[in-house]
Amino acid sequence: MNLLMDFYELTMGQSYFNKRMKEKVAYFDLFFRQIPDKGGFVIANGIGRCLKYLNQFSLSTSDIDYLKQNGNFSLEYLDYLKNIKFSGDMWAVEDGTVIFPNEPLITIKAPLIEAQLIETALLLIFNHSSLITTKTNRIVRSALGRSVMEFGTRRAQGKEAAVEGALDAYIAGAVGTACTLSGKKYNIPVLGTMAHSFVQSFDSEYSAFKAYAETYPNACVLLVDTYNTLKSGLPNAIKIQNEILKPLGKNLAGIRIDSGDLVRLSKSARKMLDDHGLQDTKIIVSNSLDEYKISLLLEQNSPIDSFGVGENLITAKSSPVLGGVYKLVAVEEKNQVIPKIKISDNVGKVINPHFKNFFRLYDKNNKIYCDLLCAYDEDLSSKLILNGESYVVKNIRRKMIENGKIIYDIPTIEQTRNYLQDELQTLPKDVLKLETAETVKVVLSEKLTQIKNNLVNSITR
Amino acid sequence: MNLLMDFYELTMGQSYFNKRMKEKVAYFDLFFRQIPDKGGFVIANGIGRCLKYLNQFSLSTSDIDYLKQNGNFSLEYLDYLKNIKFSGDMWAVEDGTVIFPNEPLITIKAPLIEAQLIETALLLIFNHSSLITTKTNRIVRSALGRSVMEFGTRRAQGKEAAVEGALDAYIAGAVGTACTLSGKKYNIPVLGTMAHSFVQSFDSEYSAFKAYAETYPNACVLLVDTYNTLKSGLPNAIKIQNEILKPLGKNLAGIRIDSGDLVRLSKSARKMLDDHGLQDTKIIVSNSLDEYKISLLLEQNSPIDSFGVGENLITAKSSPVLGGVYKLVAVEEKNQVIPKIKISDNVGKVINPHFKNFFRLYDKNNKIYCDLLCAYDEDLSSKLILNGESYVVKNIRRKMIENGKIIYDIPTIEQTRNYLQDELQTLPKDVLKLETAETVKVVLSEKLTQIKNNLVNSITR
Repeated sequence: MNLLMDFYELTMGQSYFNKRMKEKVAYFDLFFRQIPDKGGFVIANGIGRCLKYLNQFSLSTSDIDYLKQNGNFSLEYLDYLKNIKFSGDMWAVEDGTVIFPNEPLITIKAPLIEAQLIETALLLIFNHSSLITTKTNRIVRSALGRSVMEFGTRRAQGKEAAVEGALDAYIAGAVGTACTLSGKKYNIPVLGTMAHSFVQSFDSEYSAFKAYAETYPNACVLLVDTYNTLKSGLPNAIKIQNEILKPLGKNLAGIRIDSGDLVRLSKSARKMLDDHGLQDTKIIVSNSLDEYKISLLLEQNSPIDSFGVGENLITAKSSPVLGGVYKLVAVEEKNQVIPKIKISDNVGKVINPHFKNFFRLYDKNNKIYCDLLCAYDEDLSSKLILNGESYVVKNIRRKMIENGKIIYDIPTIEQTRNYLQDELQTLPKDVLKLETAETVKVVLSEKLTQIKNNLVNSITR
Repeated sequence: MNLLMDFYELTMGQSYFNKRMKEKVAYFDLFFRQIPDKGGFVIANGIGRCLKYLNQFSLSTSDIDYLKQNGNFSLEYLDYLKNIKFSGDMWAVEDGTVIFPNEPLITIKAPLIEAQLIETALLLIFNHSSLITTKTNRIVRSALGRSVMEFGTRRAQGKEAAVEGALDAYIAGAVGTACTLSGKKYNIPVLGTMAHSFVQSFDSEYSAFKAYAETYPNACVLLVDTYNTLKSGLPNAIKIQNEILKPLGKNLAGIRIDSGDLVRLSKSARKMLDDHGLQDTKIIVSNSLDEYKISLLLEQNSPIDSFGVGENLITAKSSPVLGGVYKLVAVEEKNQVIPKIKISDNVGKVINPHFKNFFRLYDKNNKIYCDLLCAYDEDLSSKLILNGESYVVKNIRRKMIENGKIIYDIPTIEQTRNYLQDELQTLPKDVLKLETAETVKVVLSEKLTQIKNNLVNSITR
């Protein structure tokens, strides 16, 4: 990951270096502005990987050699880069947390050059991981308790998108992945059925099914749409049950349908299976599924047990970018934290300045009431009474790195997967809808509002 | 890359193995069905990387250990996998070639298990690389000769998507990338300007610009929209020219605008720069650009010299999947090539069977007239007369691997970049439009049509 940085971070760094600003302490916030897919929330993920990145942040000799031959950098600056480490602090929400626009999800406090050079990698990791987690969770929720399998590797945008995306999908609630490499790397469940090529490789569909059933009598899932689902695939599958599996005391585990009218085919298949005593045989479908298609299938009472979801999940196809940004919000001068703002010519791009605290208020049902951004030196008690109602106040970020050292126990994959489910319970019902205008309000404290207004006025007056 | 395979490839492999079919020779075609973004063509890329993948294809001891503890595989099969290599043949179009739906872009001839296990990696590499190349080339063409810079790393779907995507963008015609790691890995140009954080880090916009101009007097590009583009950014940039650069005998290289109404701002900025004798100062813009936004900017005569394009390029956001598939088209039995078909319940998913030759016909202006798919044993002369017109016939695929050995010189990045430009010259004008119903016809030979019809009839009768 070393040189995974935008080149301008290195050139700006040299200018800071020349101006003796490298020790100047800066505060950066990582936040996003818009929820993908008209949803009500995003799920944070990738924080654990950001911590590991910062922990090993350094440039190798070959990195320095490369920068030297680029010709833009002085030897003094390259000498400084040769020994660079991340020596700052980091606060962040935990992986699996539900989050909303314009919230400081990560805050970095560090010497200016360090804080600048880590920008691209933090954004890339957080944006991608949160995007796939959020998208997969939409798909999982649309399946209303039925299982979702991650089948997207072949359409992923690169190997890392496949391997890390499969992990994110599992954390988000998928039951497993087809990506064997991800299974090996993260010890998450790997699964799959059968390809059309398998069926085609044999003289007949029946002989292909027979070979498979003999190899996997305990977990025999047959792909039934290579030639004709109802006239060939299903009859052959039932024949396999009667001629191969039943004599072994086994039952057909499932069938997969990968094309055609999935409502009609799944209903007909269910009936044919049931008529032959195969009530426990699962129906698995695939074919460019996403949360919208799954919702439609289930609204029409399709008797489907499991969904294989590929490209729409692994690329978050309907909205393939989470637009997280990383903005300077304050600098230190003479041990004072000086808030900083950026105005720009798009109103939506004005940032919330200053080093902040980030609180979440829960109502008596443990649902989120609102999120509250304060100045870093404003503290809140753990209970708050508003209009006669009592709210629990939580600081939902943790200090995870101090002086360059990780001071936080990174949760396991299973812990994050479970925490994410707990987090969903804190969302008001309307926020959970796939498309919704409802989200959680993010409120600025009086003090922070004042600081923001003063900065805007000082610049635009 | 070793275990970058869908789990079902491994389970199917065991069934082939148990049925003593591992030496059975199969033919697989890699093709796609739909052109992204309503375009007229796709540009093939990633073939070079597929060759390198096949050349090193093997499973490590730790891969085998992982599969062993999975519990689904016999020791005999694992023993076989331990020594697996790719021993087959591969034919493919060259990187940079313009391609169309349902064409056999890669054909693999190999023992069944080998051919099956390489499926996912070949698809992933080809799909992603061709997608980003095609998308970037759309953006580059929309810029009508102005330069396009790849700025997308922070929004890429993983590190590999950033690094490989930057290479693909360069091959497609971008002038360079902000991704330093890609610059190091592939020796392609790295570039960038300045972030808002740089401007904010100083007491004033002027002092930030001054620091930058003093560090980079020869290549001073200033970001002018942190506070107010026309009232603050431009006046400060012009002051820098007069007070810092001019005394050094230098000129302001450029300004960048990253927000607001880019038509209005670029026109006003151009006028202000020209009025101060800065006719050579370039105007660079960014802000969620893509081929449609660039076309609109240029239609309105915006005096822009260079476009920085981020998320829409690096994720191919408007159409983030190239749906390449890998299908069995034939097997060998007793040294005979037996064509195979898949029907399925979607008409669009019926494949073109058989081991094929793939020819391209050019008219007298060297424009593509049509593409022609034939059976492998049909040969065409290099000239063809159709309706009195003479066409040049080229076999546009090369045999690149024979018995597992690469027998093809993989072109350099610059060679592919240039070849791609030559390829664009062969396209009829209407096919080059950003949105078009025109594409190149793909025709099946009489013999191949006969084979396909016979197979369809034998199954559906």
